[in-house]
This record gives sequence, structure tokens and C-alpha cells, in this order.
Amino acid sequence: MKKFTALVLLAGAVTMALPAAAQFARPEDAIKYRQSAMYIMGQNAGRIGAMVQGRTPFDAKVAADSAATIEFASRLPWGAFGDGTDKASIATRAKPEVWTDKAKFQELADKLQAETTKLNTAAKTGNLDNIKAAMGGVGAACKACHDGFQAKQQ
Amino acid sequence: MKKFTALVLLAGAVTMALPAAAQFARPEDAIKYRQSAMYIMGQNAGRIGAMVQGRTPFDAKVAADSAATIEFASRLPWGAFGDGTDKASIATRAKPEVWTDKAKFQELADKLQAETTKLNTAAKTGNLDNIKAAMGGVGAACKACHDGFQAKQQ
Repeated sequence: MKKFTALVLLAGAVTMALPAAAQFARPEDAIKYRQSAMYIMGQNAGRIGAMVQGRTPFDAKVAADSAATIEFASRLPWGAFGDGTDKASIATRAKPEVWTDKAKFQELADKLQAETTKLNTAAKTGNLDNIKAAMGGVGAACKACHDGFQAKQQ
Repeated sequence: MKKFTALVLLAGAVTMALPAAAQFARPEDAIKYRQSAMYIMGQNAGRIGAMVQGRTPFDAKVAADSAATIEFASRLPWGAFGDGTDKASIATRAKPEVWTDKAKFQELADKLQAETTKLNTAAKTGNLDNIKAAMGGVGAACKACHDGFQAKQQ
């Protein structure tokens, strides 16, 4: 009976660990996944950034679409930083600190998501000044995390 | 005056063309963008597919999150198939038909988005049979487009 209970508890623990650990078949998949989400965010941030800086004409619809995409994509990378995804056969710029300072990394991930939600709300107003202010918060959140947790581009 | 009008009309035409043409600085950016969106869709479809096929335990929350991500990501690739993004310094499996048979490509892109919306609705019911049925439609939409518009993996 004790052995059976232990097995059930063990099975339970394994199942509970699944969402984080078993989402990706290989570390390469996790790395590609988080890089894909970051890339989509970066492209859309660049699009809004160009409008904010006056390099392209302001288009409220494009800005709103981009802000919605940034908010959505900002939720995706974090489940792809599971244990064992620090190294693989493809390059990753994630620093060891992602796994050695998980609390700080999570705090910055949460911060980004809060800022992208504000950006999405701002973009829906169709007002460029609101978008500019919110983009400042998003940019600061990107930078704070990249400074500490992402290796510089070679 | 005629010259001025022509310039204004030209400027207008360029501006109207911007959303499609100027979203990406380089063809490589467009290719990476659509590949990123497709990759995110594929990973999430694999996650739901494993549940539907009984290879992983059904987790309604994970399935719903994945379905929402698939629906969102299914809207992203199409703006990244602009003219001039058929070839670049990075590999693309997009076939020339994407640009020579735009109407059919658009039809299949629309079909996918309709099917992913159905999947997202189905996943919110938390019922695996509903999800299974909707996944059939999504899988068929993926295949229909890949068959005609994507080169086979080398």
C-alpha cells in the first residue's frame, strides 16, 4: 500500500511538472520558440518605435496591431526557459543568470508583460503621445532584462 | 500645379503601399518573421496534437493556452510575404506560387485563420472531443497550404 501511494504521488509530481518540462521535445525547440517570440516582439517594437521617433508616418491601425502583437508575444518566451535549455546545438544568448537568478528574471519578465499591456491600452487610444509614453516603459523593461540576462551580440 | 499634384498623388501611393511594403527593413526580416510565427504555431499545434492522440495527458488549460496562441499567431505571417521576400540571404521554403498565385494563397491563409478561430472556441469548452474535431480542420488547412506553397524539407 505504501509503495502504491508513493507511486501515485510520484506520478502526480511528474504530471505536475509536465507543463514546464515537457512542452518542448528538445532544448533546441525551446530556444527557437523563445527566440521566435522575441523576434516578433522586436519587429513590432521597431515598427512603433519608428512612428514614435517620426521616421515613419503615424498609422494608428498599424500601431494598434503591433501593440496587440507585442502584448501577446510578451507572454510566450518564459515557459521556454526551462531547466536544461541553457545550452543546445544552436546558439542562445541567454546568460547563465537566467537559471541562477530565477527570481530576478521572473520579476523582469512580469515587468515586461505589465508594460506591454499598458502599451496595448495606449495604442487603442490612437494617440501618439500616449503610445510614446508607453513605449518608454516597454523599452526600459526590454533593456533591464537584456542588460542582465542576455549576452551581447557577437 | 500638375507637377505638384503628381507629387502629392505619388506620395499618397507610397504611403498607402507602406503597410505592406515597409513593415520590414530587409527581406530577411520578413522571412524570419513569418518563420517565427509558423514555428510558434507548429509547436503549439504539436502540443495539442499530442493530447488529441493520447500521447500526453489532456490538460485543458495547456490546450486552451496553445489554441489561443495558435489563433493569434495564425494572423501574423501573411504581411511578411510581400513582393521581394521570395529570396534572400537566408533560406525560405516558400514556393514561387506564393507570389504567382496570390488569390489562392490568400484563400488558404483565410481558411487557416477561420479554422484556428474554431479551434480556440473549441478549446475554451475544455472538451477533448471538441478540440479533436477542430484540430482536424486546422491540420487540413495547414496541409492544404503547405502542399501547394511550401517546398519539401531537404
